[in-house]
Order: sequence, then C-alpha cells, then structure tokens
Amino acid sequence: MAEEEVKQGSENSYGAEEELKPYLVTDPKEMSARIDALRAQGKRIGLVPTMGALHLGHLSLAIASKNECDVTVVSDFVNPTQFAPNEDYDKYPRTLDADLTLLTHIKADYVFAPSPADMYPSGFEANVHVGGVSKVLEGAFRPTHFDGVCTVVLKLFNLVRADVAYFGQKDYQQVCVVRKMVRDLNVPVEIAMKPIIRDRDGVALSSRNQYLSDDERRQARVLNKSLEKAKELIQGGERDSEVVYDAMRQIIETAPSAKIDYLHIGDPESLREMERIAGNVVVLEAVRVGATRLIDNCLIER
Amino acid sequence: MAEEEVKQGSENSYGAEEELKPYLVTDPKEMSARIDALRAQGKRIGLVPTMGALHLGHLSLAIASKNECDVTVVSDFVNPTQFAPNEDYDKYPRTLDADLTLLTHIKADYVFAPSPADMYPSGFEANVHVGGVSKVLEGAFRPTHFDGVCTVVLKLFNLVRADVAYFGQKDYQQVCVVRKMVRDLNVPVEIAMKPIIRDRDGVALSSRNQYLSDDERRQARVLNKSLEKAKELIQGGERDSEVVYDAMRQIIETAPSAKIDYLHIGDPESLREMERIAGNVVVLEAVRVGATRLIDNCLIER
Repeated sequence: MAEEEVKQGSENSYGAEEELKPYLVTDPKEMSARIDALRAQGKRIGLVPTMGALHLGHLSLAIASKNECDVTVVSDFVNPTQFAPNEDYDKYPRTLDADLTLLTHIKADYVFAPSPADMYPSGFEANVHVGGVSKVLEGAFRPTHFDGVCTVVLKLFNLVRADVAYFGQKDYQQVCVVRKMVRDLNVPVEIAMKPIIRDRDGVALSSRNQYLSDDERRQARVLNKSLEKAKELIQGGERDSEVVYDAMRQIIETAPSAKIDYLHIGDPESLREMERIAGNVVVLEAVRVGATRLIDNCLIER
Repeated sequence: MAEEEVKQGSENSYGAEEELKPYLVTDPKEMSARIDALRAQGKRIGLVPTMGALHLGHLSLAIASKNECDVTVVSDFVNPTQFAPNEDYDKYPRTLDADLTLLTHIKADYVFAPSPADMYPSGFEANVHVGGVSKVLEGAFRPTHFDGVCTVVLKLFNLVRADVAYFGQKDYQQVCVVRKMVRDLNVPVEIAMKPIIRDRDGVALSSRNQYLSDDERRQARVLNKSLEKAKELIQGGERDSEVVYDAMRQIIETAPSAKIDYLHIGDPESLREMERIAGNVVVLEAVRVGATRLIDNCLIER
C-alpha cells in the first residue's frame, strides 16, 4: 500500500492532480506532451485502444498492460471513420463516467478521450489502407471499416507512442489487420492479443451485447456453441471445412432471429480460407441476431 | 579537430566501425535497433530522406541536420511506389558509392540504404493517402505519386524516429503534403524546409538535371527566369495572376523545347490558387524540357 502511494507520487512530473487515477486527458497535444515526458524517463508504455463502453474484456487488457508496463493509457474514443453511414455510430454507447470509474479500480494511469473534432479537424482527409487481410470477411461486409480502424489506430500509436498495444481476440481480424499495418509501415510498437472474455452463458463480451433483448441474448449463445462444436469436430480429426460449417449452421439455425453473415475456417495469420483443414486454424463467424451484428471466433491449435 | 574525434568515438555504442562515417545500414531492423539505442541515450536525431544521386541541395539538408541535431541519418532509397509505370524509375540515377563519398566530407552519421525488397516485402499492400493538398498540381499530373511519397516517408519516419526531418523547398508541394500527413496522422516529427540551391546559371539543383543535353540545360534557365519575373511583378504591385502567368509564359516560350505542365500562384500552405494576389504567395511551375520534366518554385513574402 505504501509502495503503491510512492509509485503514484513519483512516476510523473505533472503534480498533485496525478494522484487521482486514471488522469483524464482530452487534448491530443497534452497527451503527446505527457508521453514525451514519460518516454524521457524511460517508462515502458502500454496502450489499450477502446471505443469506451468498457466491459471486463477491455479491463483484462488494461490489467495485462498494468502487469507488463510502467504506464497504462486507455484510449476511449468512438471513432466515426470506422462506421459506415448505415451503421450504429450515433447509438453506440458512450459511458465515459462509468468507464473512468471502472478504470479507477484497476488504477489505469491515463484515459485519453479526445473529441471527434480534435481527432479529425477541418480539412482532415487522410486514409491508411493496408490491403491483404483487411479486404476479406469484415472487410468485405464493411468495406470502409478497416481503413477507419487503421487510420485511427495509427493516430493513437503516434500520439501515445506505446511500447505495447493491447487488443482483444474477440476482434480477431482487427488484430491481424493492425499487425499487417505495423509490419507494412514499420510502426515501432508491439501488438499483444489477449484472450476473449466470455459471460457465464458463453457469450463473448461486447459493447454491442447491450443492444440485445433478453430473448435475443439467449439466442446469441449459438455463436459460442457453434464454435465449441467446430473445435470438437476439428480436434476429433475432421478435415473437411464444409462438414464443420454444416454442423455450425445446424446449431446457429436453432436461433430463430439469427442470420449468418459468414462462417470461415482460415489460416490464423493470413486468414486464407481452408477447404481441407491442416495445422492450426482460426474459426471466425459473424451472425446477426435480430438487428445486432455479433462476431466471435476460436483459435484451434493442433 | 581533437573535439571532433572525441565526439565521433563517444556518440554511440556500436564500436570501432562507427568511426568511419557515414556508417552504411541496409537492413531496416538494424536501422531501427540503432535508433532505439540512440534514442535511449537521448540523442536528437535528424533525418534527410533522399533518393540518392546526391547534389549540393541534399548536402545542404544534411549540413542543416548536422548543425541542429546530435545524429544525422541520410536515407538513400529510390522509392518505386512514387513512380508511375511510364516514369523514370528504371533510369533514375543510382550512385550510392558517390553519395557515401560526399557524405563522408560532411560526416553524416548514418546512411540508410535499404533494398526495395526489404522496404516492400512480399504481401505489402499498404497505402497512405492524405487528400487535400496532395490532389492538385503534381498530384493531378502524377496521380499515385504522393501516396507513394507519403507511404515511404511514413515508413522512414517509423524506422528512424527522427526529431526533425529535412526537406528541400525545390519539392515545395511535397513538403506541404508531408506536413499534412504529419498533422493528420499525428506523426511525432518536426518538418524543416530548407531553401532551394541553384547552380550559377540559376537552374535549381535536381537529380533529374543530368538527363538534360547541353542545349536543354541552357533552355532550362527559363524556369528560374520566369520565377524571377513573377517575383518582380508581384513585388512591384501586380495583383492579377493572369498577368503574371502571361509574363512567365513569354519567358518560357523562348525555349523551343519547353512545354508548360502548369504555372500556379497559390496560398503558401493550402496551395489554393489565387486569381487576385493577396498576402504571401508561392509561385509553382512544372515544365518539360525535351523529355525531362522539371519543377521549380518561389515563395514571395510581402
């Protein structure tokens, strides 16, 4: 406890306000200046990029950063450029006060919550495109989505200049896309992927789960159940992806409001689809339950 | 002289080979690791991005960096992605040995000369687009040029993580585009623009001047002469851009092999064209002399 207090008091040069954690920063210039000071002190910085509406999935990333880094920055920004015009940008939950409270419990150091106008000032037109793995699955269903993700994530990387950035496996393809950007553009950051956190009913935690009615929530269990079935089949020796897809479909179709966008068995890195299953694979799925689009996935190592 | 030697011996931790300056690095991973070590020592790093074929214009940038930074890195890379298929990528001069000799004289610290395959490995598809100022003038004549410039410059910024990057005013629009990228993507680097260096005949130094025959070289003087005329007129009170363009055209048309791509009087930052001249302006021109396309410009402050 005493150690904790000393650490809090000494780990930066910004005075007393810092003892209240997390410290909220809204101005990108201020964030950048604080990072300059922290880097000059040789601090190892962890970044957890989020769109707020924090749940235990995000917190597990922040806790990983707390364990592995000297300073943990959680960004909390609902990024307009990764939503298509017909998507849920306006109704996406914004819960900054609740997010700050949650992050107080784990003593995250900084919350960076800029305004859209500060991130995208008048005249902004930049776009970062990485091709490859960004063009399939989510990229096919949401054609501008990953360009928006790459652009905002690169801006956050440049502002926070983290040593490590933490992403959840729930958005598996997003992690692949961000890793491709980091590799192709030589971005000096390590990308850490942490496991999916599931509720007791097996549903992967997602900020979008709160759109589900009680009945839809029950139906949403078919996502994880179908992944469990895929794992059982593949680990049992099944090599024909169509057989696995059929079994997954049968489970998902037990939910009357569920509509499959895609089921995909692919290479864990390139996501290239496999007709014959060989080696490690990732099974990815996107399913609409009523009006809510949910994604889930499962890595199967053999 | 003794001071110089001490400085050389102590300013990095890479051992004896460093005393031969500049030290040539070809592997991006090695460059990045060396920068990590230099940054950990708190060195101020200057980067001079070039495509080699160095002339006094480039050297003036490296000298500025030597004066203002602890460590000067000159990148020497003919970037394929900024050339269109019909342009001069294959015949662009490659003179690494001569470049190293020139940089020995000014004691640049590192030359970073990666291979195309190291910069663009198999699977590379990333593209950085900044819109705005990148879409006019050179961007209109060479539609993929500035995306290629932004992408390679961002990669170099990420690998070298310079405090300051030095660019020549000769490529004025390029500086505007890079500044827009830095602003839009929050890249943590300062962009310094240094004056055009001209030969005794007034022709702006350019690696492409070596394509000119003796006769074309004499004709190429019309670029600077027309800019001198524009300056004289504008500083003398002329406010009508068309009058200035006409006077410039008259001068350029005295060169039988010269063909104007554009003449442009614009805002020094946005490059927005001005019909009525007000405040500071930049005058930009692109002129083909025979088969060689030359650009030049002049900032006029009033």
